[in-house]
Amino acid sequence: MVRGNDRKPMNAQAKLDQAIRRSRSLVCVGLDTDPARLPACLRKHKDPVTAFNRSIIAATADLVCAYKLNLAFYEAYGGRGLSSLERTLAFIPSRVLVILDGKRGDIGNTSSLYARSLFDHYRADAVTVHPYMGYDSLAPFFEYRDKLTFVLCLTSNPGARQFQWQPARRPLYLAVAKKAHQWQARTGNCGLVMGGTYPAALKRVRRLCPGQTFLIPGIGAQAGDVKKVLSNGLAARGVAGLVINSSRGIIYADSSKRFDLAAREQARQLREEINNYLIFKQKA
Amino acid sequence: MVRGNDRKPMNAQAKLDQAIRRSRSLVCVGLDTDPARLPACLRKHKDPVTAFNRSIIAATADLVCAYKLNLAFYEAYGGRGLSSLERTLAFIPSRVLVILDGKRGDIGNTSSLYARSLFDHYRADAVTVHPYMGYDSLAPFFEYRDKLTFVLCLTSNPGARQFQWQPARRPLYLAVAKKAHQWQARTGNCGLVMGGTYPAALKRVRRLCPGQTFLIPGIGAQAGDVKKVLSNGLAARGVAGLVINSSRGIIYADSSKRFDLAAREQARQLREEINNYLIFKQKA
Repeated sequence: MVRGNDRKPMNAQAKLDQAIRRSRSLVCVGLDTDPARLPACLRKHKDPVTAFNRSIIAATADLVCAYKLNLAFYEAYGGRGLSSLERTLAFIPSRVLVILDGKRGDIGNTSSLYARSLFDHYRADAVTVHPYMGYDSLAPFFEYRDKLTFVLCLTSNPGARQFQWQPARRPLYLAVAKKAHQWQARTGNCGLVMGGTYPAALKRVRRLCPGQTFLIPGIGAQAGDVKKVLSNGLAARGVAGLVINSSRGIIYADSSKRFDLAAREQARQLREEINNYLIFKQKA
Repeated sequence: MVRGNDRKPMNAQAKLDQAIRRSRSLVCVGLDTDPARLPACLRKHKDPVTAFNRSIIAATADLVCAYKLNLAFYEAYGGRGLSSLERTLAFIPSRVLVILDGKRGDIGNTSSLYARSLFDHYRADAVTVHPYMGYDSLAPFFEYRDKLTFVLCLTSNPGARQFQWQPARRPLYLAVAKKAHQWQARTGNCGLVMGGTYPAALKRVRRLCPGQTFLIPGIGAQAGDVKKVLSNGLAARGVAGLVINSSRGIIYADSSKRFDLAAREQARQLREEINNYLIFKQKA
């Protein structure tokens, strides 16, 4: 067990809703921390990745509803990387959602092990999974009823066109969205990953999945449009149904000693950019 | 670097071909070692998973062309599990192919980290990946020209029906196979994962990808038929184009002190079952 406290774990969806209300923010900061990109002032630190993450968390925790950690950035450094991951998780306040972004997916007995590792050992609130192998490959994740499992639906990379958009009239991503809507009815804890770079697709998926939570990558470094994401992606019911991730745009905003303040400023600006539009919507 | 020797690493496809010829075997043993299923005699060992794997490897290395390690079985135990993984890899003779089965797949900069971890740090010869995000998510794996990357095409679990077999006349798995054939032309190191439980589909994919290497799970515990796999899946050129995996059927054949001899006997029988048919084919 990594994130140490004795309290009964809170339902992840409820926790997210509370975190959004408390922080007045849909912003998720991606702690995809690359040791090669750390500020020079941290280089001599014993565990520079954790030191960096700790500063970023301290500087942004009141401005965000979630942190997302891409497992590859930690696994790439073996046991040492996993130690940094564990230590980082301990610095995230328990009121903020933790998404472990590993994009797992395997046959049932294997997915059970991934789920156990991410939910029980690392105590993640939410994870990301590949849909390719279908329901029984994801069921071990959904069985953690108090956790959230985000299924890859439409990703923001160029290669997404090859399978997710085919065939043109009945694209795979819509088939995944339809199934995910059924899974949500069955399990109540199924979210979707929807790249922020395709607003029209976001609209179609929102129509199919009116109340589900979407994790939106592709804002910031990948140049998705915040206003279009909101106008097409806001949930028809519930708090907002959106968690908008930015990684590189926030954590690498500055490489001086004041990197944490620069990250805070970026997170604050993104929150404001989003909230301006939310307020505008409420007034309309 | 885990698998320690100074020799220049051999091209994985050439290594596989040589391993098949030397061992006269298409058998791959899946070291999906579950600490809860170890023989009682190993329970008091300091690192029982490695001790078990070491014995299985010693008892089977001359009978197999490859070992496949599913990463979930090691990651589930954090740093300790990764140590068992590293130690196990050191016991695999360098002439036998090592497949690290992690079913990864993410946007480019993240997949680069997974590829670096699996190929550079753990020195795997081959890995498995999810195709859902398309070519640019897999390119960082293919860029390791001397390694093999197996793309999930058709998996043997029930949930495969939901996306891989849809729509009926132009199923997704065939679209993946077609793309994988193009990728193979471009990179020369693209294999496919093809569940052993669907011989007719195997035939269709073999027709599209006549020379590519298929990794076949689903034999043994999942009851795929060896004869049908061979008659539908053998490559039109090259050594055989098939690596046939069995995990639970071999490594858990017996739970007494003689578990390693029992595993050897299962591996030998599977090799013979396959080779009977191969010899029959050569005679015909």
